[in-house]
Amino acid sequence: MFAGGYWGKILRVNLTNKTYAVEELPRETANQFLGGMGFAVHYLYKELTPGIDPLSPENKLAVFPGPFTGTNVPCSSRIAFAAKSPLTGALGVALSGGYFPAELKFAGFDGIIVEGKAEKPTYIFIQDGKVLFRNAQRMWGSTTSDCQVMIKHDLGDQNVRIACIGPAGEKLSHMACIINERRAAGRKGLGAVMGSKNLKAIVVRGNQQVPISNAEALKEARSTMAKAMKASPVLYPQFSKLGTAMVVDHLSAMGMLPMNNWSETGTAPVEENIGVAKQEELKVGKEHCHSCPVGCTQQLITRKGPRAGILGEPEYESFYSLGSTTGVSDVGEISASDRLCDELGLDTMSAGVCVGFAMELAQKGLLPKEQHEGLDLSFGNATTQYELIRRMALREPGLGELLTNGTRQAAKKLGGEAWKYAMHVKGLELPAYDVRGAMAHGLNYATSFTGADHNRGYAIQEIFSVPVPYPVDKDSIEGKGALTKWNQDIGTGTCDCATICAFMLTIAMPDTIVECTAAMATALTGVTFTADDVWRIGERVNNLAKAFNCREGFSRKEDTLPWRVMHEPLKAGLSKGGVISPEKLDTMLDEYYTVRGWDKTTSAPTKETLLALNLPEAARDLYGA
Amino acid sequence: MFAGGYWGKILRVNLTNKTYAVEELPRETANQFLGGMGFAVHYLYKELTPGIDPLSPENKLAVFPGPFTGTNVPCSSRIAFAAKSPLTGALGVALSGGYFPAELKFAGFDGIIVEGKAEKPTYIFIQDGKVLFRNAQRMWGSTTSDCQVMIKHDLGDQNVRIACIGPAGEKLSHMACIINERRAAGRKGLGAVMGSKNLKAIVVRGNQQVPISNAEALKEARSTMAKAMKASPVLYPQFSKLGTAMVVDHLSAMGMLPMNNWSETGTAPVEENIGVAKQEELKVGKEHCHSCPVGCTQQLITRKGPRAGILGEPEYESFYSLGSTTGVSDVGEISASDRLCDELGLDTMSAGVCVGFAMELAQKGLLPKEQHEGLDLSFGNATTQYELIRRMALREPGLGELLTNGTRQAAKKLGGEAWKYAMHVKGLELPAYDVRGAMAHGLNYATSFTGADHNRGYAIQEIFSVPVPYPVDKDSIEGKGALTKWNQDIGTGTCDCATICAFMLTIAMPDTIVECTAAMATALTGVTFTADDVWRIGERVNNLAKAFNCREGFSRKEDTLPWRVMHEPLKAGLSKGGVISPEKLDTMLDEYYTVRGWDKTTSAPTKETLLALNLPEAARDLYGA
Repeated sequence: MFAGGYWGKILRVNLTNKTYAVEELPRETANQFLGGMGFAVHYLYKELTPGIDPLSPENKLAVFPGPFTGTNVPCSSRIAFAAKSPLTGALGVALSGGYFPAELKFAGFDGIIVEGKAEKPTYIFIQDGKVLFRNAQRMWGSTTSDCQVMIKHDLGDQNVRIACIGPAGEKLSHMACIINERRAAGRKGLGAVMGSKNLKAIVVRGNQQVPISNAEALKEARSTMAKAMKASPVLYPQFSKLGTAMVVDHLSAMGMLPMNNWSETGTAPVEENIGVAKQEELKVGKEHCHSCPVGCTQQLITRKGPRAGILGEPEYESFYSLGSTTGVSDVGEISASDRLCDELGLDTMSAGVCVGFAMELAQKGLLPKEQHEGLDLSFGNATTQYELIRRMALREPGLGELLTNGTRQAAKKLGGEAWKYAMHVKGLELPAYDVRGAMAHGLNYATSFTGADHNRGYAIQEIFSVPVPYPVDKDSIEGKGALTKWNQDIGTGTCDCATICAFMLTIAMPDTIVECTAAMATALTGVTFTADDVWRIGERVNNLAKAFNCREGFSRKEDTLPWRVMHEPLKAGLSKGGVISPEKLDTMLDEYYTVRGWDKTTSAPTKETLLALNLPEAARDLYGA
Repeated sequence: MFAGGYWGKILRVNLTNKTYAVEELPRETANQFLGGMGFAVHYLYKELTPGIDPLSPENKLAVFPGPFTGTNVPCSSRIAFAAKSPLTGALGVALSGGYFPAELKFAGFDGIIVEGKAEKPTYIFIQDGKVLFRNAQRMWGSTTSDCQVMIKHDLGDQNVRIACIGPAGEKLSHMACIINERRAAGRKGLGAVMGSKNLKAIVVRGNQQVPISNAEALKEARSTMAKAMKASPVLYPQFSKLGTAMVVDHLSAMGMLPMNNWSETGTAPVEENIGVAKQEELKVGKEHCHSCPVGCTQQLITRKGPRAGILGEPEYESFYSLGSTTGVSDVGEISASDRLCDELGLDTMSAGVCVGFAMELAQKGLLPKEQHEGLDLSFGNATTQYELIRRMALREPGLGELLTNGTRQAAKKLGGEAWKYAMHVKGLELPAYDVRGAMAHGLNYATSFTGADHNRGYAIQEIFSVPVPYPVDKDSIEGKGALTKWNQDIGTGTCDCATICAFMLTIAMPDTIVECTAAMATALTGVTFTADDVWRIGERVNNLAKAFNCREGFSRKEDTLPWRVMHEPLKAGLSKGGVISPEKLDTMLDEYYTVRGWDKTTSAPTKETLLALNLPEAARDLYGA
């Protein structure tokens, strides 16, 4: 290892041969990409052959925690899972929290690259530098909770931490997620990548202590961050108590919480049914990730109806995807659906949007009655939603098979006008913000390399005016290209690469978080990182990821938005009449590409931009030697 | 502590005052009652006031592992939970396995007595001799799996072992069970006793090593037992691979697996649908209890239909109660129902028998259509079964409320002829052996102090002729009084008090197990126990338990069988025409009371019998000073 923040060890696991190797993490890579998603993008760009099938053994799963993960830096137990996405065909990244990320560090590695395909269902057990390949036949088909219980028993060790897939991942649903404990690396179908490799779970356990270069300096920087967190009028007073789902009230009040597959946003109040007051009735407790003093995960127990007794941990996004956009207006039902998705290993967001999509198609006659399989596909039918989740996760013939790979593929299969109501960008279903009332957020959905993703470039300035600085006119397109770049790069530098929890950025002061990240990285690694370096890392990673997509054939035409967002104005709310017309989008894109130094026709980073970011390999790939 | 096998410490927990005390286990008690159910019966007899409401704070929950629990004696991690039963009104005992029993010993106690009632939902955490009272408000309403996950997280310790209740226990269902890990102390509604005390869970953790008086001698005795186990042609070759559910084929072939609420036993083969061959299709693995080299728990995953993805661990009894007697003929559905019962904390046996009872009443018009709540109550409807389990566990108004306290109370509420089809003895629903073809087994159902209980006095000689010695004519009543006493006392001495797993007795050689129990008890405690002593302990405990019931007002009239068993002959099978008529039962009872030294009128142990068994307190209670 090289001292200071990194073990200097990357674990490379080959499932085909049941072999593993420990490789050196180059100091240069550490300095240029910091960790987490940065490392993942770096390795996948370097190692994945363009054009491969994401569900073939040629794809690789990269698993990278951040530099602070496993230390007592607040909210640092985060980890990036990445691979070429079966859902989007682009580079796919999803981050998760919990205890798995820290435990991987305790096991002595800076990250894992999983290659090949096991002959039979397998799980890998990584403990203090060693790897075992274990038979997972018995866990195959199990829910994610059961799988974790079974593995703990199988190993005779209750203290292992497990990232696993459910039946959805095994069935190669393009919406399959990866679950560790009850946290999810939810999006982009990375669970299917594990499934395609016959990899049921990655299990970690260790007793190593993360090396720190300057403990005193880290303590100081950490303390600055902790103070900034305490100073937030939102973080502890509200967020710690209510979690992300408190956002329901706010977005509903703005008229920006998408309803009924985005057809009715803002036309009726949603918070009356599923807002904080209603959530509180079912709330039983909260959970923390490792090293987190906040604890934003809210636990709700369904108290009545056929799903009574089920414990869920729905985030704001699930209140949208399994609630407002499917018309389900009961907190308990949303929570139960959320849990079912987690258990079967299906992304709650894509799954819910698929349900809403099917419901609207049924209403519009675009999904013929004979294909309804006896289900009442009316908006708001919670039992139908619950059943559809199951059918999608298990890829049951009919509706399950039709919807399991997301709205884009389903619309293509159905033909006709179905595509107009498929709420996705690049195949990734839209998150819970009706961007017809938030232009930069919309531009971000259009340009994020992962598809419509609220975890890249979240336009906090448009969604919340207080306490975040730099509030902007959310309905105006002016300056939104620059703002989107700003949001994407800061988020990638701090949250995606340093793997500081994204909620720190959206709730605390962005500038402070960047400065703290730089100071903590310096203290941890012994290499000087400035705030500019953190920004630069964010920009570098976003450029390299974009280059990955361009190498796969992505161009400007994929940087777009769903038809509805571009052609049907908001019917109500603060941004009534709002729409991101193709013209508006084009104007914003032009500005965005310009500030990014990207080509306006191809949308690719120019050679100069890539070289300026020290990405010569990408420059060579896109523009020749 | 006093050395050798016992800590000499009983933990007494008072939930009302949130206090606890550590009491000495008298050497005399240890010698007279050995452990497990013996200790439980001793303490409850001594401490419970006759006539108390089982769900009042005056009831006590006794929790006692056996002397070998926590050592490496094979199959010794068993524990008796006991209290006055809300289901039967008699003394209620249920044993469980898993890791909880051993961990309680590691925590430094020979057992626990829980008294009073907590003001609010509480769990107790017992670690290395100390007790914490913890708020369980957040776990209240949770399933048994979720509860265990939440408590581990709450304590920040993944290695605790937890015995808890589900929603059924909280709702005071008289069929509520106690679940530790995924093992159940299933019967007699002891989960409701915990619920009535606002006690969600008992959590144990420790690092003590069980004191052994003569390790060398224990090793030798243990080795004799291990050899006997190896010599069994059934234990490892079959039972270890197939578990209890393999019995489906055997009992079905005998025509003794009760079908459709005991109306059609043996008239159609059941093993074709739910026998071993079909079970194997869904089998994914097996589980062991602590110290068990056998591992009889089979794990099945439901692969199709609305319950696909659910992992169950159904025993033979569940294949009956949630299968043959409700007409459900799909292994996956039975397994899923089994899991639901476990999660909601409902005894699979009583719950299933209640479902079958409701189905037959519906068929016979004894449950009016307007009370069906839209459910198709036909035999064999798995979805109805699943839904009824939920409604019973959550005590939902209507059918849930009607059935949640068992068939006896439901029949009473319904009136008319419903009682004829309520398959219980003393309120406890019948296990999976149609005793019209097994007379001693029937006599045991009638006389067991806990009600119809296959875990007291299992008539192995009638059910399996090989490899068990002493086969008898199962259809004859001759000598069955003596045989029943034999079965009850050997089972209580070895399995209930020494807490050697009951499967050792039913599968290996009974005499060997008694001898090994005596030798191991001698080696462990340093006090000499002979085989006669083990028999004597079994007899003593059964007499004291009977005295408990008599003190509660039980008499000969409660030692009976369901109407159907006494009046409707078997329609098919090896014992076609078999019935235990009131006359036959009376003849057997007379013999039984005689060999027991019990009064034929009152059914109570005579004074002489009690004094001969060194139970002077019971003699005084029943017959005066």
